[in-house]
Formats: sequence, C-alpha cells, structure tokens
Amino acid sequence: MDHTKILLDENDMPKQWYNILADLPVEPPLNPATREPMNPKDLEPIFAKELIKQEISSERYITIPEEVREIYKLWRPSPLYRAHRLEKALGTPAKIYYKNEGVSPAGSHKPNTAIAQAYYNMKEGTERISTETGAGQWGSALSLSCNYFGIECKVYMVRSSFYQKPYRKSLINLWGANVVPSPSPDTQFGRKILEMYPDTTGSLGIAISEAIEDAALNDNTKYALGSVLNHTCLHQTVVGLETQKQFEMTEDYPDIVIGCCGGGSNLAGVSLPYIRDNIAGKTSTRIIAVEPSACPSLTGGKFEYDFGDMAQMTPLLKMYTLGSGFIPPAIHAGGLRYHGASPIVSKLVADKFMEARAYHQVEVFDAAVTFARSEGIAPAPESSHAIKAAIDEAIKCKQTGQEKTILFNLSGHGHFDMGSYDKYFTGDLTNE
Amino acid sequence: MDHTKILLDENDMPKQWYNILADLPVEPPLNPATREPMNPKDLEPIFAKELIKQEISSERYITIPEEVREIYKLWRPSPLYRAHRLEKALGTPAKIYYKNEGVSPAGSHKPNTAIAQAYYNMKEGTERISTETGAGQWGSALSLSCNYFGIECKVYMVRSSFYQKPYRKSLINLWGANVVPSPSPDTQFGRKILEMYPDTTGSLGIAISEAIEDAALNDNTKYALGSVLNHTCLHQTVVGLETQKQFEMTEDYPDIVIGCCGGGSNLAGVSLPYIRDNIAGKTSTRIIAVEPSACPSLTGGKFEYDFGDMAQMTPLLKMYTLGSGFIPPAIHAGGLRYHGASPIVSKLVADKFMEARAYHQVEVFDAAVTFARSEGIAPAPESSHAIKAAIDEAIKCKQTGQEKTILFNLSGHGHFDMGSYDKYFTGDLTNE
Repeated sequence: MDHTKILLDENDMPKQWYNILADLPVEPPLNPATREPMNPKDLEPIFAKELIKQEISSERYITIPEEVREIYKLWRPSPLYRAHRLEKALGTPAKIYYKNEGVSPAGSHKPNTAIAQAYYNMKEGTERISTETGAGQWGSALSLSCNYFGIECKVYMVRSSFYQKPYRKSLINLWGANVVPSPSPDTQFGRKILEMYPDTTGSLGIAISEAIEDAALNDNTKYALGSVLNHTCLHQTVVGLETQKQFEMTEDYPDIVIGCCGGGSNLAGVSLPYIRDNIAGKTSTRIIAVEPSACPSLTGGKFEYDFGDMAQMTPLLKMYTLGSGFIPPAIHAGGLRYHGASPIVSKLVADKFMEARAYHQVEVFDAAVTFARSEGIAPAPESSHAIKAAIDEAIKCKQTGQEKTILFNLSGHGHFDMGSYDKYFTGDLTNE
Repeated sequence: MDHTKILLDENDMPKQWYNILADLPVEPPLNPATREPMNPKDLEPIFAKELIKQEISSERYITIPEEVREIYKLWRPSPLYRAHRLEKALGTPAKIYYKNEGVSPAGSHKPNTAIAQAYYNMKEGTERISTETGAGQWGSALSLSCNYFGIECKVYMVRSSFYQKPYRKSLINLWGANVVPSPSPDTQFGRKILEMYPDTTGSLGIAISEAIEDAALNDNTKYALGSVLNHTCLHQTVVGLETQKQFEMTEDYPDIVIGCCGGGSNLAGVSLPYIRDNIAGKTSTRIIAVEPSACPSLTGGKFEYDFGDMAQMTPLLKMYTLGSGFIPPAIHAGGLRYHGASPIVSKLVADKFMEARAYHQVEVFDAAVTFARSEGIAPAPESSHAIKAAIDEAIKCKQTGQEKTILFNLSGHGHFDMGSYDKYFTGDLTNE
C-alpha cells in the first residue's frame, strides 16, 4: 500500500514564501477619509514596517528568515496524509490527501504567520502586540509566537468563544499572553459596545476594533492580524509549497484543492502555489473555498470596498463582505465568523480562479464524525467545512467513476472544540 | 544546527515487539483462592486467548500483525525531538531528547496496545469489550481501536476524571464507545460502592472491578486493560525500539531514559529495549521511573502479591502496591492514580535495573510550563512528571559540566487537561 504519511525532511522545508501579488495584483486599500489609496506610511503606527512592505510587495518570492524557519521546525514540514481509510469508508475511486496543520503546538495553521509577524516586530523593537481572536486559534498562535521573541501580548477574544471554548483561552495563558473577552471594558470602543449591547456574543469586527485602538493609543504596541491581509496569506503559502514538494514524492498531483474560508488565510496558504501554476498555464487545478452558510461572505456577500472592523477604523479593503456591522450567529466554527474575506481570495473568486460554496453546520459535523471514525483525528469545526467538500467531491467521483486526486487542508484539530461535538451528539446543534 | 525532529519512514517502523520476559522472567500471577500460579485457561472468560499467550510468552520477539502496523501508520513512527529550546532555557550542556507519543489521534501512547488488543479480540470473534479509564487516555484509545474493528466498547471512567476532564469523555463518544462515570449503577460492584460511599471520587481499582464484572457476566464481552499487564508493556516497546532506530540516525545514544509511571506501560515501552541492551552487557543506560508523591507505589509501596482491583476479583500480581483498597487524592495527573505498578516495572525496580522517584504536582506543573514555553507543546500532567525528572537531570549536568544525553517519553499532550493548567495559574493547585 502507498504511504499513509508523506513526510518532508526539515531541511527540505521551503526557504521562501510565494507572493501571488507578483502574478495577480489586488486593488489597494483605501484611506476611508479620502477614498484614495492608503499611504503605506499611514499604517506604521499599527503595523511593523516589514509587514507593510510585504503587504504591497510585488516580489514573487520572499525569503523566510532563518530564525522563523528554526521555529517552524518544531512542527514543520507538516505531514501530508493519504486518507486511505476515508476513501474506503466512502467507497470512492478518488484519492484523498490532506495536509495536517493541526500538528503545530497551537493546533492550527495560524503559527505560520504568527511566528513571522512576531519575528519582524521583535526586529523592529516592538515591546507589545495587541490582537483579536475568534475561536482562539489565532490568539493562541500569537501568544506562542510572542513568547519566543520576548514580546508582551494582549488578546481580545470574541465573547462567545471565550466562554464556549475556555481551553483555547487557557492555552493563551499557558504561553504567557493576557486574554480578555471582547467587547471588554479595556478600550473605549469595547465600553461603548458593552453599553449599547450588554448581551452581545461579540464578533471579530468588534474585537479587531478593540485591538487596533489598543495599538493606536499605546506607543510601544503594534497590532497583528491573523488572516485577511496579503502578508498573512503570503506566510501561509509555506503550506501549499510543502504539499507540492510532497506530491513530487508520490505519483499524484491534485485535481482539486480545498480549504475552509473565514478570513481566508489557510485556504490561500494551501491553494496559492497551485493557482500560480494555473496562471502559468502549467496546470488546471480546481480550487474550492468552503464557508459556513451562517456567515457566507463569498457566496452571499458583495464584492466592494468595506471596513475590516466594526468601528470603521481600518482602511477600506476591496473584498466580498456581508457589511462591517454584520454579527453572525454563534456557530461552532467560531473561526469562520468574519464578515469579509481576504482581498486576495475575494479577487480570486471574482475572477473565477476559485469556486466558493457554503454548508450548514450539521452536515459539516456529519462529515467531521465520518473523518474522525476513519482517519482517527478529531478535526476542528472550521476545517470540517473542507472535509465536507472533499467528501462531496469524492462521492461525485464514485458516481462518475472518475479517479480524481483531491487535496484539502486540515487547518486544525478539534481538541478544544469537543463541547461542540457533545452538542452534535445530543442533537443540540442546529443550522443557525 | 542538528535536526529538531528525527523522523523514521513508516516502512522502518519495527516489525516486532520486544518481550523482556525472555530475558527477565517475572513471578507468575496467583489464583487468589489457592495462591497457586494461575492456569492461563482460567483467564479466558475475560481475555482474548492470544493476549493470554503473550502475557506468559518467553519468545524474545513477537511479530506485530500487519493490520496493526497499518493502523499504527496513522501516527507512527512518532517523531523523536531534540529539545534544543529547552536545553537553552536551562543553560545545560546536556542533550535532551523526547519521544512524542502525543501525536496519536487519542493524544497518548495508549493506542499502541489498544489497537493490538482490539485486533486480537476481533480475530477471536469478540463482539464487545469493557474497560476502565482514569484520566480518559486509555478509554479514548480503546474507543478509537474498537471503532476500527467493529467492536462495541463500554468504558467505566473514574468519576473524578469524568467531571474534571469532560472532553476526553467527548472523544470517547466521538469514536463511538459508551462511557459512564465509575462507580456506576450498571454493575453490582458499582452499586455497592455507590451505596457505601455516595460521594467517592472513584478510583481505577473500582473501575477495573466494574469492567471485569461486566466482561465476566456478559458472554460476548471481553475485558481490556491499558497498562500493568505484561502484554501491555510488550505492545508499548514499539516506542523504545523506534527511538533506538532514531538514535542510529544521530551521533547520540541516551545515558538516561525517563518515563512517568502509573501502571507503568509507557515507561516500560520506552525503556525495555534499553534494559535489554543493559542486560546483554552492551550498555549501561540509567532508567528512571517517575511517579506522583500522592500515589507513590514504587517509592512508598510494598513489593508483594496484591489484587489488581478493589473488589479483589483479579489474580494476585507480584508488584509494588499501596494496597488494593488505596484511594489516592484527585490529583491532576489522573492517569497516575493506580495503587500498584506493573509486575515487570516492579521487578526491574526491585532488582535495581531501574530507579524510582516521586514529585509533588506543583513542581510537576512548573516543569510543564517551562517545557510549553520552550518546546511549544502543552504536555499532559502525567508526562510532565517525566519532564520534571529530565529537567532535574539536565540541571545536574549544568552543575557538573557533564554532557549527558537524556531521553524522556512525552507520553501525551495536555489538550484535555487545560482545566488543571487554569488551576495552576490561579494558584488553586496544591500538593495534595
């Protein structure tokens, strides 16, 4: 039988990230006051300079700093799995592969950019970083990363997740960061929202506003975002680049690449290197973005300039958006509750480089359980959206007899989401 | 810099387990009625025949069935890590390595024997398996394994862990087993204990009694034990055998091998192959067993024949024991609360092939946090006993200037133990 795990030696980890802006520029962020393209200098109060540079760079490849690669080696290169047991359970002629990003200490793909962002901030003398987190995957990843570079870290965690996923919060504490539920009394915007909506479950839009305000008002503090922006998608390309090296070790190459999409970074990470090859005319790989029906920015939003946060403090980004005031229901895939999608992913969908689809959460958990009982791993609810799409594609192959090769990104494990599984099994989980 | 992870290809996974009984026989189990050595036939109502055969086998090597190796490949060979960052944090000249058994779907070493036990039971037509679990690591591992072989599974989970670690219970459900808090109303013995001690936190001894009663009274049901017995130690030797192949890929060989010890199987797994080489006169590796001060069978118990369970239904085993009626405090390392230690480990300690030491839980969590902040991984409280000993040995090297090579078994991750970390950080965790 073919290998179950395709492993790369750590010396074969990519040495550069792939920057799709070299092949496919996106519309620039606008200054909300003037509606003119932002002056990069205006972003310096809240972002490290190197990250601003990467945000607008048109260099095709950007070198991964050696210090970042050394930390990546704690879990990278991550294994590419051939899902032999899932294929058998489905009775499909398709070959299903998944990249397991759940092997990072924080349990998701998020440290790929968190480590890089903390590193560049350290190089520029940043003493403290503020951020928001939805389900806690990003907050825990940034906490881990700041710990490695001696940077203080403050995390504003969406209130519904703070209480629904208490152990991601514990993980944030374990690595030494300070975490509060958002909206919080620690910021002007948080206090305002708490007065207006004392019972709000919170949202990423609110938490982003709080974290940005924190960075803007504190001299020694910068802000870090875990998804959406170009540089976060850039850093995540290590995922897709590794899979391409891993596929070279097999006789397969993916016909379909699938990722779940909240802000869009894990999807971008796994798919951009394949889109590069599509653009170059070398391949014609189908790319599928999968989002929750409860927060359907790509399938139900408008492609227009909008704010990244609820307080309307960020630059305007051209993206598929449900509106910066949108507060999604408290679904269990807490990490997929952002009102917009990354400008890069949005452009790829708009220009038909990428398809998008949405699923309800009960069918997503059905897929998660099928996966856990065949492949063993308990997947995160977010990642289970990708699993659902992979299963659907594999079942189509069963119907047509086609032996397609399907790759999906298992962006994280579900060890901190077991309360959601409990609700699924007791029937208390519904299609909000 | 040397590699961070030493990886074996899955085709290089050991094809045989190492059976130390060939080199060092242990005293046989006794029939409690006659105090004569048990007739293996008498065990057949509760154990699969092949497991009974392995329990008393004197073959040095036992072939790992191909079906078991295929499932092992979902996570095995597990990575051997060089703890570069921990070494640096300690400022030690010692080289620290750890075997990461937390990469299994259940998050610990337990599936190494669970898969094997479920396999042999399936081969012999067993339709249902009953078992007990402490912290839930064994119960989740057996649930995973029974799922692969179509066997129904019933888990009696020590009550304190059932409520303290609810998400291991969720994991047991995810893979399809039925789990109840022990003592439970489902058995005669459980009902008796509930009447006598309605507020008991439970113990492994009680849960074992319930699981054995279940197997004894139900025709289609066998029982499975996750540690203590010779065949569980046998199956775990895949851990130590892999590390020996992995050390061949480095220029190092361990001077010290460390494992935490509850029943003793993960410690046996990592150390028996090294003890084999010590017995053969090839090496003189120090082996250290680490247990909690709250349940100190090796350092505070007597080496004598005792029952394995509280209801005194099991054969008598020659082991270090605190007495089969011992109920330890509800410490956070729930997996190290067994009143006895495996006969193999006990004999090795008695015969000075192995040292033993005990730590209090606060110093163990100190070590866990040091580890998490250097190596990233959040370790299980059980495994953190081994970390504490490894750190102590590395600090000794700092004092003496010796460049020793230290290996410890990271038997599992702590993703389902974050509530204990919360208590540690709020100061609510004490040395019970």
